[in-house]
Amino acid sequence: MDLTPGARGRTAAHLLTREEVLAFAAAYDPQAFHLSDDGASGHPFFDRLAASGWHTASVVMRLTVDFLATFAIKPLGGAGVDDLRWTRPVYPGDSISAELEVLGLLPGKPRPGMTIVRLQTVAVNQDGEPVMRHLSSVIFPDSATAAL
Amino acid sequence: MDLTPGARGRTAAHLLTREEVLAFAAAYDPQAFHLSDDGASGHPFFDRLAASGWHTASVVMRLTVDFLATFAIKPLGGAGVDDLRWTRPVYPGDSISAELEVLGLLPGKPRPGMTIVRLQTVAVNQDGEPVMRHLSSVIFPDSATAAL
Repeated sequence: MDLTPGARGRTAAHLLTREEVLAFAAAYDPQAFHLSDDGASGHPFFDRLAASGWHTASVVMRLTVDFLATFAIKPLGGAGVDDLRWTRPVYPGDSISAELEVLGLLPGKPRPGMTIVRLQTVAVNQDGEPVMRHLSSVIFPDSATAAL
Repeated sequence: MDLTPGARGRTAAHLLTREEVLAFAAAYDPQAFHLSDDGASGHPFFDRLAASGWHTASVVMRLTVDFLATFAIKPLGGAGVDDLRWTRPVYPGDSISAELEVLGLLPGKPRPGMTIVRLQTVAVNQDGEPVMRHLSSVIFPDSATAAL
């Protein structure tokens, strides 16, 4: 994968263990349905203990950083994220990966020598069902987009 | 605070320790500038080791859940987040809190008995400087918005 508009890639997958789901929720999203199966009982959207949406987003960040690093692509930072949607529950035991697509380069430069790349991310579970998506604006050094 | 349009509230603050910043980055955002001061050396935006933006977002989720719980307000889940922006670095030792405002209730119901509330969140550091913001669409049982 490179940073050419239209370029696509697929990250490795990450298996969310029950332990990891519980640890994240205890620290950052202690709602009952993220803390135990009992806490999800009767919930309209979750059958059982479900992962925090912020946990899914964080796992996808990890997968993306690792994936880009295999191409020696190193972002300088994230300018922002739009249209972040959680479209399906993520449960312990689910294996999450992300499909990335370079939508384009934003006009203008945050600083000389830098370019903002618009990336579309769709995270899917082991059955290929989309669980999360977002559009991110990621800042790269011009050297990373030089081929363009 | 209640879920009336225009209602505002301010969460408690959370001090981000260096240990917590490093642990989050190691698990979810292992970019050099989130892992050590040396790794941030020469970085255009960060003077030193800086927290992952997803860490800041997760801390703000925790503060928000705890804050709403003090009013016995329990969301059913998040439908999505728009306009997520990281506007200033967050460093170890920073103390983050969030200002919440109910912008309104979205028309339509995801399911009978539920209402989607549009919330504006602005996270600030100990000097009151905004470090992150977003607009979230949060699903509540109608009972939580019954006063409206």
